Amino acid sequence: MEKEWGIVEVLRHSRHDWLNKLQLIKGNIDLNRIDRAKEVIDEIVIEAQHETKLTNLNMPMFASLLFTSNWKNPFFRLEYEVLEDAEPLKMNDSVLTNWTSSFFSCLNKAIEAFQENHLSITIEPQSEGIRFFFDFSGIIIKSELIEKFLGESKSLEIEIKEFSESELALEVFIPKL
Amino acid sequence: MEKEWGIVEVLRHSRHDWLNKLQLIKGNIDLNRIDRAKEVIDEIVIEAQHETKLTNLNMPMFASLLFTSNWKNPFFRLEYEVLEDAEPLKMNDSVLTNWTSSFFSCLNKAIEAFQENHLSITIEPQSEGIRFFFDFSGIIIKSELIEKFLGESKSLEIEIKEFSESELALEVFIPKL
Repeated sequence: MEKEWGIVEVLRHSRHDWLNKLQLIKGNIDLNRIDRAKEVIDEIVIEAQHETKLTNLNMPMFASLLFTSNWKNPFFRLEYEVLEDAEPLKMNDSVLTNWTSSFFSCLNKAIEAFQENHLSITIEPQSEGIRFFFDFSGIIIKSELIEKFLGESKSLEIEIKEFSESELALEVFIPKL
Repeated sequence: MEKEWGIVEVLRHSRHDWLNKLQLIKGNIDLNRIDRAKEVIDEIVIEAQHETKLTNLNMPMFASLLFTSNWKNPFFRLEYEVLEDAEPLKMNDSVLTNWTSSFFSCLNKAIEAFQENHLSITIEPQSEGIRFFFDFSGIIIKSELIEKFLGESKSLEIEIKEFSESELALEVFIPKL
């Protein structure tokens, strides 16, 4: 575990997130929007299921990076989903984590601060490995940083699906060990 | 942070706890017990406030011990409350944590498994230190273990307020450094 994330800190951030969700439920109940409150609960449960699936991939470094990303207040909001609850494969956790962590840093420097910047990661476990789709939408102001970073990313098999000033879509495949 | 509690594990347990709370809200909404659902939310918020106050005491080892206790599935259920949100004092975190951790182990060996065993810790910050009230109710079957442990507890100022087969109440005062 990274030094800065002790139990107390992890739970402090997590508690803050959950209390925000609770506030959303409470707000809808107070306004007597009971059906909306139920929907909010269902959405929260689905989000938690993705977190559980991410945990079950047995890539603790990568999962920790994703769990803590929004707590570091980057200029983009991270979301993720795991498509299937597959048998965990033996994967190279550190290679993917190091690359993703560098990608987050690069992206953070390349985009315009305080805009609607979203990064969505879709994780698709397959029989021979795991396919990762990174979809960014927002405002890219220094695309040369991303070009340079992608050019230097030799450790992974990366396909650039889309790259404009408002979108970046990458597909990364990590074969099982 | 203890090795066994990585970010992923801490969040896994915490998620499980929060989903249980969410289930309680959802169950009441589904039964159209809207007022009860609101009460449940209020109770959850109060519990979270105690966790925040515990975090703010600036005793991360002690807070971590309390946060993780129920996740280790002891034969007693731990609850705690912090009476005031005081200025954090400079305290000897490790002395209190080591003693409390040993007390938990001793209690766990001294009580009957799978019974209604509850340990409540009330934390009262004061100007000269912090006062801790440990109140156990349940079934003590090996009181000699507790007697021995308390007799050997030289590092802390402990007052035994109550000690029977169904109750143990201790008051511990930790002066500020």
